[in-house]
Amino acid sequence: MLVNGQHQETIAISDRALHYGDGVFETVLVRARQPVLWSRHLQRLQHGCQRLQIPLDTACLHTEMAELLDTHALTHGVLKILISRGSGGRGYMPPATPTPTRMLQMHPLPEDYPQYSARGIQVMRCQHPLSLNPALAGLKHLNRLDQVMASLELTPAFQEGLMCRPDGLLIEGIKSNVFLHDGRQWLTPDLQHAGVAGVMRDWLLQQIPQTRVRALGENEVLAATEMFVCNSVFGIWPITQLHWGSHMRQLAIGEQTRQLQALFEGCRE
Amino acid sequence: MLVNGQHQETIAISDRALHYGDGVFETVLVRARQPVLWSRHLQRLQHGCQRLQIPLDTACLHTEMAELLDTHALTHGVLKILISRGSGGRGYMPPATPTPTRMLQMHPLPEDYPQYSARGIQVMRCQHPLSLNPALAGLKHLNRLDQVMASLELTPAFQEGLMCRPDGLLIEGIKSNVFLHDGRQWLTPDLQHAGVAGVMRDWLLQQIPQTRVRALGENEVLAATEMFVCNSVFGIWPITQLHWGSHMRQLAIGEQTRQLQALFEGCRE
Repeated sequence: MLVNGQHQETIAISDRALHYGDGVFETVLVRARQPVLWSRHLQRLQHGCQRLQIPLDTACLHTEMAELLDTHALTHGVLKILISRGSGGRGYMPPATPTPTRMLQMHPLPEDYPQYSARGIQVMRCQHPLSLNPALAGLKHLNRLDQVMASLELTPAFQEGLMCRPDGLLIEGIKSNVFLHDGRQWLTPDLQHAGVAGVMRDWLLQQIPQTRVRALGENEVLAATEMFVCNSVFGIWPITQLHWGSHMRQLAIGEQTRQLQALFEGCRE
Repeated sequence: MLVNGQHQETIAISDRALHYGDGVFETVLVRARQPVLWSRHLQRLQHGCQRLQIPLDTACLHTEMAELLDTHALTHGVLKILISRGSGGRGYMPPATPTPTRMLQMHPLPEDYPQYSARGIQVMRCQHPLSLNPALAGLKHLNRLDQVMASLELTPAFQEGLMCRPDGLLIEGIKSNVFLHDGRQWLTPDLQHAGVAGVMRDWLLQQIPQTRVRALGENEVLAATEMFVCNSVFGIWPITQLHWGSHMRQLAIGEQTRQLQALFEGCRE
């Protein structure tokens, strides 16, 4: 664990991430000591920091990342990067010149992840709604109580939960974005008012540029011929069983999904 | 600073408050080593923990509070209580049996606060909207980026900012609730979809039970004959100048507001 380049296991109680969730984070897949889709992660991190007016020292971040990735016992795994505004300020009001905290940590990839890519997963619709806010939508900030609350609804049969706006429009998975096929084309929810704009979603929209990005309601979810969730750590998990309220749908894993999975496996971005 | 009863200045990096804002907090006015409006703070804390499914050890909390309040160099000030779900779990998914972290800290009351109660304050409408979520509205949880972002808009001329829903309905102040008088009666925004249900708001609704709690739009704000913001630390700050977009209103401080301030000064609850 590196905190501003120092090995430590604790952080100052005054840190604003603790009090207000005042920061952003990334979880990055690491293969053979290399961060995958790194330029996209960095772009989102920079964008998030800019939106929150947190200065990001990219040079320091790269130095600390290199130190961690080059020396860590794990050569494969997940790198978590957390950028907090640091300590100081007066209540909610941030300090005029923040001294951000950079936290870097390597974790092993959960052992059960690869089987879900191969076999597919069961998902359920969660009741907890996502917060609506056009000014924060898309950012991977540290205010993640919605995801925590939705996780509390998941029973062990489900590997992921689907989350909706308070009005019922589908937005994303708890830890993923979602794509569905309506028999003609791929669709994914627009994230103008809620949700995290995933790096893997971004990559997929480049691979399947004809994907329609728009509002998706219950009828379209229940009529889907194929669905998957995605994130930059596990890649693509096909959904083989969908529980949506009192509805249940069995879904097949399509050829194009398998091709996209293979493309991501070989991705050297 | 007490963390689960121990004097310490740091906290484990794995704490879920840091990663997800997974917890709740209270800021309590302390007068002569006594927490003011304590039963209301405790009730909200218990309610918040229950909603987030965080077990709260009230007996331990009371013991730790007594230790801090009885021995601290400050006999007057602000007690901050932060309850996090603690460490553990798997990503967003909380551990089945959480070990919460209780953090207690005394701060001095900001020196400039009393003058604002006496003279009144200038407030501006902030552009950053409050997140809408009926499942979290009312709770004093640790996801407070909205308040941080709104604070960044405040210039030094303003002691508080007013925050609205994305659709423009008034909800609250950045660190306070808001009451306005329309010439006939007191009104305060309903908090079913956004906002923090303040302990001071709760106390005031008991003192002026004829207050109407409902949606309040721009027209009603601009037509107000009197306004104030309130919280349990500073009590009641009358608004003497309101900047709302291109509009500016001068407001008087009414007799009933002065009576309510005096009532709170003498409050032994």
